[in-house]
Amino acid sequence: MTASLEALDLDPAFALHRGGKLEIRSTIPVRNADDLALAYTPGVARVCSAIADNPELAQDYTWTSNVVAVVSDGTAVLGLGDIGPAAAMPVMEGKALLFKEFGGVDSVPICLACTGVDEIVETVARLAPSFGGINLEDISAPRCFEIEERLRALLSIPVFHDDQHGTAIVVLAALRNAARLTGRPLSELRAVVAGAGASGVAVTRILVNAGIGDIAVADSKGLLFEGREGMNPIKDALARDTNRRGLKGSTEQALAGADVFIGLSGATVSEAAIAGMAAGSIVFALSNPTPEVHPEVAAKYARVVATGRSDFPNQINNVLAFPGVFRGALDVRATTITENMKVAAAIALADVVGDEVAADYVIPSPFDARVAPAVTAAVAGQARLDGVARK
Amino acid sequence: MTASLEALDLDPAFALHRGGKLEIRSTIPVRNADDLALAYTPGVARVCSAIADNPELAQDYTWTSNVVAVVSDGTAVLGLGDIGPAAAMPVMEGKALLFKEFGGVDSVPICLACTGVDEIVETVARLAPSFGGINLEDISAPRCFEIEERLRALLSIPVFHDDQHGTAIVVLAALRNAARLTGRPLSELRAVVAGAGASGVAVTRILVNAGIGDIAVADSKGLLFEGREGMNPIKDALARDTNRRGLKGSTEQALAGADVFIGLSGATVSEAAIAGMAAGSIVFALSNPTPEVHPEVAAKYARVVATGRSDFPNQINNVLAFPGVFRGALDVRATTITENMKVAAAIALADVVGDEVAADYVIPSPFDARVAPAVTAAVAGQARLDGVARK
Repeated sequence: MTASLEALDLDPAFALHRGGKLEIRSTIPVRNADDLALAYTPGVARVCSAIADNPELAQDYTWTSNVVAVVSDGTAVLGLGDIGPAAAMPVMEGKALLFKEFGGVDSVPICLACTGVDEIVETVARLAPSFGGINLEDISAPRCFEIEERLRALLSIPVFHDDQHGTAIVVLAALRNAARLTGRPLSELRAVVAGAGASGVAVTRILVNAGIGDIAVADSKGLLFEGREGMNPIKDALARDTNRRGLKGSTEQALAGADVFIGLSGATVSEAAIAGMAAGSIVFALSNPTPEVHPEVAAKYARVVATGRSDFPNQINNVLAFPGVFRGALDVRATTITENMKVAAAIALADVVGDEVAADYVIPSPFDARVAPAVTAAVAGQARLDGVARK
Repeated sequence: MTASLEALDLDPAFALHRGGKLEIRSTIPVRNADDLALAYTPGVARVCSAIADNPELAQDYTWTSNVVAVVSDGTAVLGLGDIGPAAAMPVMEGKALLFKEFGGVDSVPICLACTGVDEIVETVARLAPSFGGINLEDISAPRCFEIEERLRALLSIPVFHDDQHGTAIVVLAALRNAARLTGRPLSELRAVVAGAGASGVAVTRILVNAGIGDIAVADSKGLLFEGREGMNPIKDALARDTNRRGLKGSTEQALAGADVFIGLSGATVSEAAIAGMAAGSIVFALSNPTPEVHPEVAAKYARVVATGRSDFPNQINNVLAFPGVFRGALDVRATTITENMKVAAAIALADVVGDEVAADYVIPSPFDARVAPAVTAAVAGQARLDGVARK
């Protein structure tokens, strides 16, 4: 085994991951018996008793109000699919690392050895007293929708499936700036979303809520329309709320004359289909590592092109949203994350770009230090407006 | 609320606990896109794929092999009893702090919103892929016995109920030194254990395994003997393996002529009963904060007196055991913690005292830096001998 680990460690990604990427640290000193008598018995008993009498005090006298569980069952990890809980852990540790670095949010990666909706919901509900929020991650569709919905109903702490809402927030932010750059209101845009999994559904929902003109959504079998065969209840609902013109057929057919393409599918789109979009089109080809259309090809026709990759302009990266979303929610001890809070996050994120908006700059860099504070403030403020803040 | 928090914070224990006692830290740098491309996408995908192909690699390339879940349901917290999961959190955070400070073990406090045996067992089993060990804490008897037993059978990582085995290890260590000081082998000692809860049962078990001469165990209704009414299966089994002379009656009656008293009950024992023990007696009055007999009273008759308190000599403190036990088990990736490993921990702990043994020094200080390394080495070595080490 040792020799093979050494061989693996020739890859710097493996070398970096040896022993994991996280640790627990004490925030207080434990140098002697006096310290121990306050941090542990007998002093701790007074704190416990006070919380037993008034459970709200747990928010002030434990770490729970700053700690989020990053929960996955390992069924939809990156582009790798159902690789199981052990193999999902490096991604969840990475998420925890990003939470801390970008949002100052402590988080604990929890990879579950179960995949049933009931089992995941009951397990997370049992863990809830230990955490101030739940970030669901890399759980496959359509289970992810029901799991999130049920946990939101059960728990009085924020529950947020980042693959859905993190992506949706960043896409909406980028689209706001792209529309502004091209001088059109969102309400006049006609969009095509390729992909009706976790991110496709959530992106479509946030765009509908933001008042976009018309959206057609496609899954692997083609466009969603009311009454189509082989749809789940999530897609049925989506079909009712989209595709005003009742289009049928493929993504590429719908792209003819469309203003916006948002790819969240892993499928490919031909150069001809991109060429057939309306003038001044907006192409977000977000599949990773291979975008639906190569960004340089798309740029021959589109005014604005974005991808999920860091080696091209306009990277749509969830790290622009989730650290600030949770930081803001935790700061005001929000009981939930409302739709308004997600839209407020997107607007704040778009506004970081401000008047510098350009075809290659519709979304800030993940390393722009203004991002997390802006999203945090917007989310916290909206939580107060929505009446879900406890502080 | 603010004013009342300020009032609470006049107590230094509360001030220390504001915001909790733990945080998550990254062990690697995240300064720029290059760092992110290794720690997160796309680099992390290569590590995930390798673990998916060979799950054992999770031990090397995630933090799980160094991280323990400290799991409680809040039903038996310190001397406070069933105060629930939220109020238990400060103790579990304290435990995590001690794990790190004394054993270099990362641990995550998990307070569960369920108390059923089946629920706790299935919840912990579902969490198991995220951890290298499970420390059960402050779960009331007799549920704690079944929960531990079932989890030990289900999981291939160490499961250790510290209230049982941590206490048992430290008591055995102190008793070995006390017996040595008074020139008697353990096999000649007659002991009385007051308390048949988690710690009473485990202390009795380890003493039986260590070959102590005879032990009588009492619960709140008096001594356990075969056929007594009102016992649970755990006590039935204990009655079969103890009380060779078939004593009936109270703790105090059994103490007449006994060599050792071990109090783990919260009840009180009279001065007269202590006075009636054999010459050169050993009194461990371990209830906290009020020992079964005041140590200064006990010292009028006993050769060696120990308590659970830091303000008297010979403090029986679990922190002497659990950090080194888990450090040793994790270092060799033990699949379980065997009885032999517990006894090896006790012997190593006793041997730290060595030839300096004295009536007021039968157990090391929790701040003796030799303790954790000695326990770690003994536990790791015994795991190898017992064939439960994976590394």
